[in-house]
Amino acid sequence: MELNADWVVGFVDAEGCFHVSVNRHADLGVGFQVLPEFVVVQHTRDQQILHALKRFFGGGVVRSNHGDRDCLRIRKISVLLEVCEFFLAHPLKTRKNTDFRKFRRILQLMDAGQHLTREGVLEIIEIASSMNSTNRPALLEVRRELSNG
Amino acid sequence: MELNADWVVGFVDAEGCFHVSVNRHADLGVGFQVLPEFVVVQHTRDQQILHALKRFFGGGVVRSNHGDRDCLRIRKISVLLEVCEFFLAHPLKTRKNTDFRKFRRILQLMDAGQHLTREGVLEIIEIASSMNSTNRPALLEVRRELSNG
Repeated sequence: MELNADWVVGFVDAEGCFHVSVNRHADLGVGFQVLPEFVVVQHTRDQQILHALKRFFGGGVVRSNHGDRDCLRIRKISVLLEVCEFFLAHPLKTRKNTDFRKFRRILQLMDAGQHLTREGVLEIIEIASSMNSTNRPALLEVRRELSNG
Repeated sequence: MELNADWVVGFVDAEGCFHVSVNRHADLGVGFQVLPEFVVVQHTRDQQILHALKRFFGGGVVRSNHGDRDCLRIRKISVLLEVCEFFLAHPLKTRKNTDFRKFRRILQLMDAGQHLTREGVLEIIEIASSMNSTNRPALLEVRRELSNG
Protein backbone atom coordinates (compact mmCIF):
# COMPACT_ATOMS: atom_id res chain seq x y z
CA MET A 1 0.00 0.00 0.00
CA GLU A 2 1.35 3.38 -1.02
CA LEU A 3 0.62 6.32 1.29
CA ASN A 4 0.85 9.94 0.21
CA ALA A 5 1.86 12.86 2.40
CA ASP A 6 -1.54 14.56 2.72
CA TRP A 7 -3.29 11.28 3.58
CA VAL A 8 -0.69 10.68 6.31
CA VAL A 9 -1.25 14.17 7.73
CA GLY A 10 -5.04 13.63 7.81
CA PHE A 11 -4.71 10.19 9.40
CA VAL A 12 -2.23 11.37 12.03
CA ASP A 13 -4.34 14.48 12.73
CA ALA A 14 -7.02 11.98 13.75
CA GLU A 15 -5.11 9.01 15.20
CA GLY A 16 -1.52 10.00 15.91
CA CYS A 17 -0.09 10.78 19.33
CA PHE A 18 3.11 12.61 20.28
CA HIS A 19 3.96 11.45 23.76
CA VAL A 20 6.82 12.21 26.15
CA SER A 21 7.39 10.46 29.46
CA VAL A 22 10.21 10.81 32.00
CA ASN A 23 11.01 7.60 33.86
CA ARG A 24 13.29 6.72 36.73
CA HIS A 25 16.54 5.19 35.38
CA ALA A 26 19.28 4.48 37.92
CA ASP A 27 21.95 3.96 35.24
CA LEU A 28 21.75 7.56 34.05
CA GLY A 29 23.63 10.27 35.91
CA VAL A 30 20.58 12.46 36.19
CA GLY A 31 18.52 9.51 37.50
CA PHE A 32 15.76 9.86 34.92
CA GLN A 33 15.30 8.92 31.27
CA VAL A 34 13.35 11.07 28.81
CA LEU A 35 11.30 8.85 26.51
CA PRO A 36 9.64 10.53 23.53
CA GLU A 37 7.48 8.42 21.24
CA PHE A 38 5.16 8.77 18.29
CA VAL A 39 2.26 6.33 18.44
CA VAL A 40 -0.58 5.38 16.10
CA VAL A 41 -3.23 2.90 17.31
CA GLN A 42 -5.54 1.04 14.95
CA HIS A 43 -7.98 -1.86 14.98
CA THR A 44 -6.23 -5.17 14.25
CA ARG A 45 -8.14 -5.50 10.96
CA ASP A 46 -6.20 -2.44 9.70
CA GLN A 47 -2.75 -3.56 10.85
CA GLN A 48 -1.59 -3.16 7.22
CA ILE A 49 -2.03 0.62 7.64
CA LEU A 50 0.40 0.60 10.58
CA HIS A 51 2.96 -1.33 8.53
CA ALA A 52 2.50 1.14 5.66
CA LEU A 53 3.09 4.04 8.08
CA LYS A 54 6.17 2.27 9.44
CA ARG A 55 7.57 2.05 5.90
CA PHE A 56 6.54 5.66 5.23
CA PHE A 57 8.46 6.98 8.25
CA GLY A 58 11.32 4.51 7.89
CA GLY A 59 11.12 2.89 11.33
CA GLY A 60 9.12 1.87 14.36
CA VAL A 61 7.62 -1.31 15.75
CA VAL A 62 4.12 -2.67 15.07
CA ARG A 63 2.69 -4.88 17.78
CA SER A 64 -0.49 -5.76 19.62
CA ASN A 65 -1.64 -2.95 21.91
CA HIS A 66 -4.59 -4.21 23.97
CA GLY A 67 -7.73 -6.09 23.05
CA ASP A 68 -8.38 -5.83 19.31
CA ARG A 69 -5.97 -2.91 18.84
CA ASP A 70 -2.55 -2.83 17.26
CA CYS A 71 -0.09 0.00 17.49
CA LEU A 72 2.88 1.50 15.67
CA ARG A 73 5.38 2.91 18.12
CA ILE A 74 8.41 4.95 17.00
CA ARG A 75 11.02 5.59 19.71
CA LYS A 76 14.33 5.74 17.87
CA ILE A 77 15.53 9.34 18.01
CA SER A 78 16.89 9.38 14.44
CA VAL A 79 13.52 8.19 13.10
CA LEU A 80 11.62 10.62 15.33
CA LEU A 81 13.74 13.44 13.90
CA GLU A 82 12.62 12.29 10.42
CA VAL A 83 9.00 12.27 11.61
CA CYS A 84 9.50 15.85 12.80
CA GLU A 85 10.99 16.91 9.47
CA PHE A 86 7.93 15.47 7.73
CA PHE A 87 5.35 17.26 9.92
CA LEU A 88 7.34 20.47 9.69
CA ALA A 89 7.07 20.32 5.89
CA HIS A 90 3.44 19.05 6.01
CA PRO A 91 1.76 20.74 9.00
CA LEU A 92 -1.01 19.05 10.96
CA LYS A 93 -4.32 20.92 10.73
CA THR A 94 -5.76 20.11 14.18
CA ARG A 95 -4.59 21.42 17.55
CA LYS A 96 -2.34 18.36 17.59
CA ASN A 97 0.07 20.62 15.72
CA THR A 98 0.69 22.47 19.01
CA ASP A 99 1.67 19.20 20.70
CA PHE A 100 3.83 18.34 17.70
CA ARG A 101 5.79 21.62 17.96
CA LYS A 102 6.47 20.99 21.65
CA PHE A 103 7.48 17.41 20.87
CA ARG A 104 9.90 18.68 18.22
CA ARG A 105 11.40 21.19 20.67
CA ILE A 106 12.02 18.35 23.16
CA LEU A 107 13.72 16.26 20.46
CA GLN A 108 15.94 19.20 19.58
CA LEU A 109 16.95 19.49 23.25
CA MET A 110 17.70 15.76 23.33
CA ASP A 111 19.65 15.99 20.08
CA ALA A 112 21.79 18.60 21.88
CA GLY A 113 22.27 16.27 24.86
CA GLN A 114 20.19 18.41 27.25
CA HIS A 115 18.23 15.39 28.51
CA LEU A 116 21.40 14.23 30.27
CA THR A 117 21.50 17.24 32.59
CA ARG A 118 19.22 18.10 35.50
CA GLU A 119 18.39 21.52 34.04
CA GLY A 120 17.68 19.98 30.66
CA VAL A 121 15.29 17.38 32.09
CA LEU A 122 13.52 20.14 34.04
CA GLU A 123 13.14 22.18 30.84
CA ILE A 124 11.82 19.12 28.99
CA ILE A 125 9.31 18.45 31.79
CA GLU A 126 8.20 22.09 31.60
CA ILE A 127 7.41 21.69 27.89
CA ALA A 128 6.01 18.14 28.08
CA SER A 129 3.65 18.91 30.95
CA SER A 130 1.89 21.49 28.76
CA MET A 131 1.16 18.90 26.04
CA ASN A 132 -2.31 17.36 25.72
CA SER A 133 -0.94 13.89 25.22
CA THR A 134 1.28 13.54 28.28
CA ASN A 135 0.75 12.32 31.83
CA ARG A 136 1.02 15.68 33.60
CA PRO A 137 0.81 14.43 37.21
CA ALA A 138 3.63 11.92 36.61
CA LEU A 139 5.82 14.62 35.04
CA LEU A 140 5.19 17.05 37.89
CA GLU A 141 6.12 14.34 40.40
CA VAL A 142 9.49 13.91 38.64
CA ARG A 143 9.96 17.69 38.64
CA ARG A 144 9.33 17.77 42.39
CA GLU A 145 11.96 15.06 42.93
CA LEU A 146 14.51 16.72 40.65
CA SER A 147 13.93 20.15 42.19
CA ASN A 148 14.47 18.77 45.71
CA GLY A 149 17.42 16.59 44.68
CA MET B 1 -9.08 26.46 6.71
CA GLU B 2 -8.64 24.78 3.33
CA LEU B 3 -8.81 21.00 3.21
CA ASN B 4 -7.44 18.92 0.36
CA ALA B 5 -8.84 15.62 -0.88
CA ASP B 6 -6.09 13.30 0.39
CA TRP B 7 -6.10 14.88 3.86
CA VAL B 8 -9.87 14.36 4.03
CA VAL B 9 -9.48 10.69 3.02
CA GLY B 10 -6.82 10.14 5.72
CA PHE B 11 -8.86 11.90 8.39
CA VAL B 12 -12.07 10.03 7.51
CA ASP B 13 -10.18 6.72 7.31
CA ALA B 14 -9.40 7.38 10.98
CA GLU B 15 -12.43 9.27 12.32
CA GLY B 16 -15.33 8.96 9.89
CA CYS B 17 -18.31 6.66 10.31
CA PHE B 18 -20.84 5.49 7.73
CA HIS B 19 -23.91 4.50 9.67
CA VAL B 20 -27.34 3.19 8.69
CA SER B 21 -30.24 2.71 11.10
CA VAL B 22 -33.82 1.62 10.45
CA ASN B 23 -36.35 3.14 12.82
CA ARG B 24 -40.05 2.68 13.40
CA HIS B 25 -42.02 5.44 11.62
CA ALA B 26 -45.81 5.14 11.68
CA ASP B 27 -46.29 7.79 8.96
CA LEU B 28 -44.54 5.69 6.32
CA GLY B 29 -46.46 2.93 4.51
CA VAL B 30 -43.79 0.37 5.23
CA GLY B 31 -43.76 1.35 8.93
CA PHE B 32 -40.02 1.95 9.09
CA GLN B 33 -37.65 4.73 8.06
CA VAL B 34 -34.16 4.07 6.71
CA LEU B 35 -31.74 6.65 8.12
CA PRO B 36 -28.25 6.73 6.60
CA GLU B 37 -25.74 9.17 8.01
CA PHE B 38 -22.10 10.09 7.72
CA VAL B 39 -20.59 11.18 11.04
CA VAL B 40 -17.26 12.62 12.16
CA VAL B 41 -16.62 13.15 15.88
CA GLN B 42 -13.89 15.41 17.21
CA HIS B 43 -12.77 17.03 20.44
CA THR B 44 -14.44 20.43 20.97
CA ARG B 45 -11.06 22.16 20.62
CA ASP B 46 -10.99 21.05 16.96
CA GLN B 47 -14.55 22.06 16.10
CA GLN B 48 -13.08 24.19 13.29
CA ILE B 49 -12.10 20.95 11.52
CA LEU B 50 -15.73 19.78 11.55
CA HIS B 51 -16.86 23.11 10.07
CA ALA B 52 -14.15 22.82 7.40
CA LEU B 53 -15.37 19.28 6.56
CA LYS B 54 -18.95 20.59 6.41
CA ARG B 55 -17.88 23.21 3.86
CA PHE B 56 -15.82 20.60 1.99
CA PHE B 57 -18.79 18.24 1.58
CA GLY B 58 -21.32 21.05 1.11
CA GLY B 59 -23.67 20.21 3.98
CA GLY B 60 -24.32 18.68 7.38
CA VAL B 61 -24.80 19.94 10.91
CA VAL B 62 -22.08 20.53 13.52
CA ARG B 63 -23.22 20.26 17.12
CA SER B 64 -22.19 19.07 20.55
CA ASN B 65 -22.07 15.27 20.75
CA HIS B 66 -21.44 14.30 24.36
CA GLY B 67 -18.95 15.50 26.95
CA ASP B 68 -16.12 17.39 25.28
CA ARG B 69 -16.90 16.01 21.82
CA ASP B 70 -18.50 17.74 18.85
CA CYS B 71 -19.79 16.03 15.78
CA LEU B 72 -20.51 16.69 12.11
CA ARG B 73 -23.57 14.75 10.98
CA ILE B 74 -24.64 14.58 7.33
CA ARG B 75 -28.11 13.11 6.76
CA LYS B 76 -29.43 14.91 3.67
CA ILE B 77 -29.53 12.34 0.86
CA SER B 78 -28.37 14.78 -1.84
CA VAL B 79 -25.28 15.67 0.26
CA LEU B 80 -24.65 12.01 1.12
CA LEU B 81 -24.68 11.23 -2.60
CA GLU B 82 -21.98 13.91 -3.02
CA VAL B 83 -19.99 12.34 -0.15
CA CYS B 84 -20.23 9.00 -1.98
CA GLU B 85 -19.05 10.53 -5.26
CA PHE B 86 -16.04 11.93 -3.41
CA PHE B 87 -15.02 8.63 -1.76
CA LEU B 88 -15.60 6.79 -5.02
CA ALA B 89 -13.08 9.10 -6.72
CA HIS B 90 -10.74 9.11 -3.66
CA PRO B 91 -10.92 5.63 -2.08
CA LEU B 92 -10.45 5.09 1.63
CA LYS B 93 -7.39 2.98 2.44
CA THR B 94 -8.63 1.20 5.59
CA ARG B 95 -11.28 -1.53 5.83
CA LYS B 96 -13.72 1.35 6.26
CA ASN B 97 -13.84 1.32 2.47
CA THR B 98 -15.88 -1.90 2.68
CA ASP B 99 -18.44 -0.18 4.90
CA PHE B 100 -18.42 2.79 2.53
CA ARG B 101 -19.26 0.62 -0.50
CA LYS B 102 -22.20 -0.94 1.35
CA PHE B 103 -23.33 2.52 2.46
CA ARG B 104 -23.22 3.71 -1.14
CA ARG B 105 -25.25 0.69 -2.31
CA ILE B 106 -27.92 1.53 0.28
CA LEU B 107 -28.02 5.16 -0.90
CA GLN B 108 -28.44 3.96 -4.49
CA LEU B 109 -31.39 1.80 -3.38
CA MET B 110 -32.90 4.81 -1.58
CA ASP B 111 -32.30 7.03 -4.61
CA ALA B 112 -34.37 4.47 -6.56
CA GLY B 113 -37.15 4.60 -3.92
CA GLN B 114 -36.55 1.05 -2.69
CA HIS B 115 -36.59 2.13 0.97
CA LEU B 116 -40.34 2.74 0.62
CA THR B 117 -41.09 -0.93 -0.06
CA ARG B 118 -40.99 -3.88 2.34
CA GLU B 119 -38.64 -5.82 0.05
CA GLY B 120 -36.38 -2.79 -0.32
CA VAL B 121 -36.10 -2.24 3.43
CA LEU B 122 -35.30 -5.95 3.89
CA GLU B 123 -32.57 -5.69 1.26
CA ILE B 124 -31.18 -2.57 2.95
CA ILE B 125 -31.19 -4.33 6.34
CA GLU B 126 -29.36 -7.28 4.75
CA ILE B 127 -26.58 -4.95 3.56
CA ALA B 128 -26.50 -2.70 6.65
CA SER B 129 -26.32 -5.57 9.12
CA SER B 130 -23.04 -6.67 7.54
CA MET B 131 -21.43 -3.24 8.13
CA ASN B 132 -19.00 -2.75 11.02
CA SER B 133 -20.56 0.56 12.00
CA THR B 134 -24.20 -0.45 12.42
CA ASN B 135 -26.28 -1.77 15.30
CA ARG B 136 -26.77 -5.30 14.02
CA PRO B 137 -29.15 -6.57 16.75
CA ALA B 138 -31.49 -3.60 16.21
CA LEU B 139 -31.50 -4.19 12.44
CA LEU B 140 -32.22 -7.91 12.84
CA GLU B 141 -35.12 -7.10 15.17
CA VAL B 142 -36.65 -4.89 12.45
CA ARG B 143 -36.09 -7.66 9.92
CA ARG B 144 -37.91 -10.11 12.18
CA GLU B 145 -40.87 -7.74 12.46
CA LEU B 146 -40.97 -7.02 8.73
CA SER B 147 -40.65 -10.71 7.84
CA ASN B 148 -43.55 -11.62 10.12
CA GLY B 149 -45.68 -8.65 9.05
